[in-house]
Amino acid sequence: MAVITLTTDFGQRDPYVAAMKGVILTSCPQARILDLSHDIAPQDTHEAARFVAGAAPYFPAGTIHVVVVDPGVGTPRRPLAVRAGGQVFLCPDNGVLTEVARALGIEEAREIANPAFMRDTISNTFHGRDVFAPAAAHLARGTSFESIGPCIGDLCALDEPEPIWVSATTLCGIVAHVDRFGNAATNIARPILGGRCIVDIAFGNHTIAGLRATYAAVDPGAPLALFNGSDHLEIAVRNGSATEKLGLVRGTEITIHVESMVPL
Amino acid sequence: MAVITLTTDFGQRDPYVAAMKGVILTSCPQARILDLSHDIAPQDTHEAARFVAGAAPYFPAGTIHVVVVDPGVGTPRRPLAVRAGGQVFLCPDNGVLTEVARALGIEEAREIANPAFMRDTISNTFHGRDVFAPAAAHLARGTSFESIGPCIGDLCALDEPEPIWVSATTLCGIVAHVDRFGNAATNIARPILGGRCIVDIAFGNHTIAGLRATYAAVDPGAPLALFNGSDHLEIAVRNGSATEKLGLVRGTEITIHVESMVPL
Amino acid sequence: MAVITLTTDFGQRDPYVAAMKGVILTSCPQARILDLSHDIAPQDTHEAARFVAGAAPYFPAGTIHVVVVDPGVGTPRRPLAVRAGGQVFLCPDNGVLTEVARALGIEEAREIANPAFMRDTISNTFHGRDVFAPAAAHLARGTSFESIGPCIGDLCALDEPEPIWVSATTLCGIVAHVDRFGNAATNIARPILGGRCIVDIAFGNHTIAGLRATYAAVDPGAPLALFNGSDHLEIAVRNGSATEKLGLVRGTEITIHVESMVPL
Repeated sequence: MAVITLTTDFGQRDPYVAAMKGVILTSCPQARILDLSHDIAPQDTHEAARFVAGAAPYFPAGTIHVVVVDPGVGTPRRPLAVRAGGQVFLCPDNGVLTEVARALGIEEAREIANPAFMRDTISNTFHGRDVFAPAAAHLARGTSFESIGPCIGDLCALDEPEPIWVSATTLCGIVAHVDRFGNAATNIARPILGGRCIVDIAFGNHTIAGLRATYAAVDPGAPLALFNGSDHLEIAVRNGSATEKLGLVRGTEITIHVESMVPL
Repeated sequence: MAVITLTTDFGQRDPYVAAMKGVILTSCPQARILDLSHDIAPQDTHEAARFVAGAAPYFPAGTIHVVVVDPGVGTPRRPLAVRAGGQVFLCPDNGVLTEVARALGIEEAREIANPAFMRDTISNTFHGRDVFAPAAAHLARGTSFESIGPCIGDLCALDEPEPIWVSATTLCGIVAHVDRFGNAATNIARPILGGRCIVDIAFGNHTIAGLRATYAAVDPGAPLALFNGSDHLEIAVRNGSATEKLGLVRGTEITIHVESMVPL
Repeated sequence: MAVITLTTDFGQRDPYVAAMKGVILTSCPQARILDLSHDIAPQDTHEAARFVAGAAPYFPAGTIHVVVVDPGVGTPRRPLAVRAGGQVFLCPDNGVLTEVARALGIEEAREIANPAFMRDTISNTFHGRDVFAPAAAHLARGTSFESIGPCIGDLCALDEPEPIWVSATTLCGIVAHVDRFGNAATNIARPILGGRCIVDIAFGNHTIAGLRATYAAVDPGAPLALFNGSDHLEIAVRNGSATEKLGLVRGTEITIHVESMVPL
C-alpha cells in the first residue's frame, strides 16, 4: 500500500489535518499516512517549496505527497496532480513544486478535474479536505493517474532569486532559509563555484574566512561557514544560532569572494 | 486492524504521548496509531470538544479515538468508552464529547471499569497511559465493547453559549474559535439563519457588509465574512489575521443583521 | 515488521525529519515509523536523555528507537547501536542513553561502522539522515545486529546531579524537568525516602506541607507536591503552572524534610 505524506501550514491545534486524515482513511482504509510537516509558516509558498525539495528526493517511487499551503483557495488556481521522480504530488498550482520540479524533473502534470476524485461537496475554503486528500486516497487505492483530469503545462513557478557573479571573483547570494537551530542556509549550491575555493564570506559587518568541514572545526560560540547536508553554503555558529549572534534572516544579502582562476 | 487516533493537550516535548504509544504497541503490536493533535491548549476541554467535533465525523466506522484533556485526573470523574457514529471514543467524562455527541449521536456509553482493560498499576496523574491507551489497545485487539464496564447515562456536557435572536432581524453570537491563520469562527451555523440573507456583521467598532463566497473575493488585507468549511460563519482577513487586524478572540461578541422576512 | 521510533531536536518546520523518513522508507518500504518527539530543546542532550527514559520502557521488545540530538555531529563522537531491554537504540555517543541504560540495562553496545548500514555519502552535518535512519531501516529489514559494527564499552554518560542527604532528615534535590503544564518534576525518586514520610518541601520563599495523592486534593490555583506518574516527587499547582506561580525552573534547588526514624 502506497504511503501518503502530508505537508501543510495548518498547525495541529485546529482539526484541519485530522479531517484530512479521516477523509483519506474513509476512502482508503489501508492507507499509510505519514506527517512531514504542519508547521510551514502560514501561507508561505516559498518555505513550502523549499521544504518539499528538501524532503521528497529521499522518498521511494510510488510515494504520494499531499502539499497544502494554499493562500489562493477558492480562486481559479488549479488543483494539481504531478508526477516527478516516480512520485506523485497533489497540491494547488501556486509554485510549491518549483524547487522539487527542478530537482526531480516533471514527468506529467494534470489538473485534478474528475469529480470522482473529490468529496461530493467542495467548500471554498478547505480543498485539503475536499480535493487533495480524497484524490490521494483514490490514487493509493490504485485508480489510474490518467483518470484524474487533463494534462496541463505551464505550471506556476515561484520567482526565487538566483546567486549572481558581480565580478570574476565575487558572488552575491542571499540567505534562503534559517532552520530551527539558527543555521542560515544560502541560495548558493556548491556547483556554481566550479571548484574554486572560497576566500571569505561577508554580510553586514561580518566577514568569515574560508570554509570549514564541520561545525566542530571552530570553538563553541564562534561563527563558521560550510556546505550543509543539502550541499548549499550555510553560515552557522557552533552550538549557537547564526540568527541571534549574526543577525542573519531570510533574505539577508551575502557576498562571497573566491580565488581568482590562475592562468595555466 | 483498527486505527487508534490520539488527541491530547500533552505537547510533544514531554514523553507522555510517547509512553501512551508504547503502551498501545505493547498490548496490540499491530495497532495503527495516528496523531490528531497534541497541541490542544492545556486543560482546555472546550477547545478539545471543538477539535473532536471538527475531526471525528470524517473518520470511518470502527475508528478508536483516544482523547486525553483531563484537568480532573485523579478525581472520581469517570473514564468513558462511548460509541457514536460507529466509532469509539475513550476519554474522561468532562464534556470533551459534548459537540461530537450532538453531531454523531451517542449509541452507547459505558464506564471503563474492567481492570483487564487497564495497566496493573493506575497512577493518580496519568490515566492517558494507565487507562485510556490500554483500553484502546484492548478494543483494537477485538475485545468486546460490552466487557469494558457498565452502561451509564448522564454524560457530563459543556455549557456552550448558543446564538440568540434578540429581535426578528438581529442575531447575537460569539467567536467560538480562532485558528492558526487568525480566522475567527463563530458559533453561528448556517441553518439558524433559515435561508435569510445577512445584511451586515458588527463587532467592536467594525461592520462587515454581507457575505463572500471565498477569501479571494476581497483585496489582500481586507476583512470579510463567509461560511467556512464547517458551515459556520467566519470572520477573516484575506491573506492576514482577523485576530491581529480586527481584535477578534474567543468569546468576542458578534451581532448579525439579516433581511426582514418579506410578507408574501 | 518492527516499529522505528524517531526522537529528535529538529522541529518539523525544516525538512530534516521528513528526509529521515524518506531514507527509511526507501530502504525498508514496509517500515512502521512512529514520531515520539521532534521538540526536544535544540542540542539539549539532558532533556533527550530524560525523554528517552520516560518513553522507551513502555515499548515492546524489538522496537528500534532512533534518537538524534547531536551537537557533536561531524566530530569523532561514535555512532551507537545499543541493545537494552530487548529494544535497539541508534544514536550518537553523547549521553542521551544515560538514563534509559540505568532503567533497562545495556545488553550490548556496538559502534555503527559497517558502511552497508549507511548512505553512500555521509555528510558532516546530518547523520540522522546519513547514518542513523539507514541503520534503523537495515535492522528493521532483519539484518543481524552483530553485523553493524564492533562491540564497544565505556559509553559516554551525562553527569546528572543526584539528590543528597545533608542531614538524617534533610534531603536536597533539584527540579529536573518542567513539563508543558508547568509541573516541576524533581530528581527525587520515591525509593530514596526509604518509606519515610515527607514533612515539608522548601524552595525559595515557599514551603509546601506534606504530600497529596492527586492534583485535585487542593483547591484550584493552590500548590501541592505528589509523586507523579514516573514515581518522582513533583511540585505542581492545581489547574495552573508551578513555573509561573512558584518560579520553579530546571535546576531550582529543593529541600525536603522527612520524619526522623523512631527507634523501635
